Amino acid sequence: MNKPLAEFIGTFTLVLFGCGSAVIAGGDIGLYGISFAFGLALIGMAYGIGHISGCHINPAVSLGAVAAGRMTISEAIVYIVSQIAGAIAAAAVLLMIASGKADYTVAANGLGQNGWGAGYLGEYSMGAAFVFELVATFLFVTVILGSTGAGAPVGFAGLAIGLTLVVIHLVGINVTGVSVNPARSIGPALFAGGAAIGQLWLFILAPILGALISGFLFRTGMLDIKN
Amino acid sequence: MNKPLAEFIGTFTLVLFGCGSAVIAGGDIGLYGISFAFGLALIGMAYGIGHISGCHINPAVSLGAVAAGRMTISEAIVYIVSQIAGAIAAAAVLLMIASGKADYTVAANGLGQNGWGAGYLGEYSMGAAFVFELVATFLFVTVILGSTGAGAPVGFAGLAIGLTLVVIHLVGINVTGVSVNPARSIGPALFAGGAAIGQLWLFILAPILGALISGFLFRTGMLDIKN
Amino acid sequence: MNKPLAEFIGTFTLVLFGCGSAVIAGGDIGLYGISFAFGLALIGMAYGIGHISGCHINPAVSLGAVAAGRMTISEAIVYIVSQIAGAIAAAAVLLMIASGKADYTVAANGLGQNGWGAGYLGEYSMGAAFVFELVATFLFVTVILGSTGAGAPVGFAGLAIGLTLVVIHLVGINVTGVSVNPARSIGPALFAGGAAIGQLWLFILAPILGALISGFLFRTGMLDIKN
Amino acid sequence: MNKPLAEFIGTFTLVLFGCGSAVIAGGDIGLYGISFAFGLALIGMAYGIGHISGCHINPAVSLGAVAAGRMTISEAIVYIVSQIAGAIAAAAVLLMIASGKADYTVAANGLGQNGWGAGYLGEYSMGAAFVFELVATFLFVTVILGSTGAGAPVGFAGLAIGLTLVVIHLVGINVTGVSVNPARSIGPALFAGGAAIGQLWLFILAPILGALISGFLFRTGMLDIKN
Repeated sequence: MNKPLAEFIGTFTLVLFGCGSAVIAGGDIGLYGISFAFGLALIGMAYGIGHISGCHINPAVSLGAVAAGRMTISEAIVYIVSQIAGAIAAAAVLLMIASGKADYTVAANGLGQNGWGAGYLGEYSMGAAFVFELVATFLFVTVILGSTGAGAPVGFAGLAIGLTLVVIHLVGINVTGVSVNPARSIGPALFAGGAAIGQLWLFILAPILGALISGFLFRTGMLDIKN
Repeated sequence: MNKPLAEFIGTFTLVLFGCGSAVIAGGDIGLYGISFAFGLALIGMAYGIGHISGCHINPAVSLGAVAAGRMTISEAIVYIVSQIAGAIAAAAVLLMIASGKADYTVAANGLGQNGWGAGYLGEYSMGAAFVFELVATFLFVTVILGSTGAGAPVGFAGLAIGLTLVVIHLVGINVTGVSVNPARSIGPALFAGGAAIGQLWLFILAPILGALISGFLFRTGMLDIKN
Repeated sequence: MNKPLAEFIGTFTLVLFGCGSAVIAGGDIGLYGISFAFGLALIGMAYGIGHISGCHINPAVSLGAVAAGRMTISEAIVYIVSQIAGAIAAAAVLLMIASGKADYTVAANGLGQNGWGAGYLGEYSMGAAFVFELVATFLFVTVILGSTGAGAPVGFAGLAIGLTLVVIHLVGINVTGVSVNPARSIGPALFAGGAAIGQLWLFILAPILGALISGFLFRTGMLDIKN
Repeated sequence: MNKPLAEFIGTFTLVLFGCGSAVIAGGDIGLYGISFAFGLALIGMAYGIGHISGCHINPAVSLGAVAAGRMTISEAIVYIVSQIAGAIAAAAVLLMIASGKADYTVAANGLGQNGWGAGYLGEYSMGAAFVFELVATFLFVTVILGSTGAGAPVGFAGLAIGLTLVVIHLVGINVTGVSVNPARSIGPALFAGGAAIGQLWLFILAPILGALISGFLFRTGMLDIKN
């Protein structure tokens, strides 16, 4: 019971603060501020709930943990349901707060949804979006599995993982808005609708693929301190 | 005697540096610079005085600790008096320094007071302000109680808590200027007067409510590693 | 022999990178970037040389340690000489690098020297400059003595101290350029000359006063975990 | 087998995210955003792969470790080959992603290659570029060897080293784009061609010289806690 609640609160925080920074303050804090918002939200939760659930707050991370042999698939399913529920709840609360500004509409200002192509930030191609999400999630999950595995200094994983999420956003917001996390994409897309729904498949598929490749690398022992 | 002094110095630092960054440098460092000022001031004090008093430096945090069963109400009252005194002293020193610039007036430039509605930053509604302060304080106190509780890695709480305060500011300065801390709101309001006094109730009520809900969740064991 | 060399290298790094960020990149990175440059340079050295000399790299810190009863005055004198030598060497190397840009002159662009009053950044008064330097150094040294004293979590002091130096700069660059460190002021002033020399007394006197008050507070045990 | 793979992935990450932030987002996040991208990528990898290979991800660091007597030259050669391969692979992937934007060309927008002189950022002289790269790498490797050596607090090296890389970039991007790492210079130069190839010698020679001086200082015991 505690683990699903922790994953719900953690993903809620990531989406409310990450996407919230873009919607409420993006024009003031820029891509730089949004990048830190996502990463620091993750750091806060890593130490706030990490000892309860591991603070995956990301279906790709849970599936990467399954691929690495650190979690069963049935445990992962409970996590993923909690994560998606937390992301949807966060998008709803963000919509409530953002609507407190007179000229806000979800159609015009969005909810921090991911995307690509014409009309979306740097207007990158679908191919670039797919490669970026796959490679970035692979590297992200490699930091997660490495820093929480045998041999890594105890306690530092939360900082390393969160700061890696910052740098992934510094690079990639122009490309896709940065997902590397299907739950983070699903929550805002449900309320934003339109292209955000039509493009959701990429933000589910590419992160999960990247995570599975990383998990497999760890399962083989190729990034294991023992070998 | 040492704990009240530590809470006084800690809250003094948070308000002097947090609000000071907005008043003295806000036009240069922007919302992201102000966000880091609040969070990094908290990190400094978490390690400077945390081992003496726990570095609450926030009445909502002390009441959340009471709700979680980690502190008695009479201890909390001593803490809260020290925190409010520190915040008022900081606002006075900030006023002294800011007045060293020829064109500064508290009426025109303020002291970093919180607010909402017409004429205040993003001009968000009272409802949005209340929801933001309540939810953000709930999540903030959840990180505090979680990262300082059983099972969390030792020593990292100060970093996690301070970086969470950064991200809360990145999101919410446009909404309320971000309180999540009644003392931080009271200090500048006493000198700024006007709307800052009239709106003070929200920055006392909403953060305390959010903190109590989080404290209650911990008291039930629902975010406890033991359950 | 190792301790003076460590203090020399540490102060060299602080001044080269801190003042260098202002001189070489200030127009691009703003007050925000300069603030992080000073603080992160201190963090790097805290872990690079801290186990050798304690990484004071600041005469006010060494004198605060004497006041707190943690260091003898004769040890402090060796430290202070090394710190000032390191700061002067850094200013010389910075001048060499900065002069590699065709339109750079020390008269027009400076070397990151401290100051106040007409023509200096926010044009704050001498009184504001003195109060800011004294109070900021008091709080800075309180974080240093607290986070390196009994009861504080081991290893985190370098991060806490460096991030405190960041926030002090976020607030105070407009007021004085931020010294809180006589060596950091002396190095650039020797090459910049003019007002930087005439105003040097404040950046020696105010930081040392603030540090002594903090050191005295710790010597009395009022911020001591034992009392 | 695991160590070369770790060094390959680590250097790949540093170049993809560091140079990627400049190419894809430089106009939005500025020199301070790029500075954090390089440093935070290093922090992520320090905890993700550091326990496997030490996370040198930089030929100058490996050669500094040889000079300090911490690694054999034959081990260093395997590391360096992996690092250069990782940097080249990263530049190729970055080129693929960047080309997903319609108006991108490597000739016009580059790949984050290093340089100096007419037409390169602040247009600093070759002498300034050489002094900066040598001194910055000396200080960088001093932080690395110090923070990972005897007496330094366990686990913090990755943070200290990465934040030092941030501050080096805050100061030096205008001078050379900042290398302090021959692999990081070689990868993008191979694809950018032209001046980036002609100037590559400096970004191999100056960092290695600076690293060797630091390594020699540690070998003599002058920065050793034992002496």
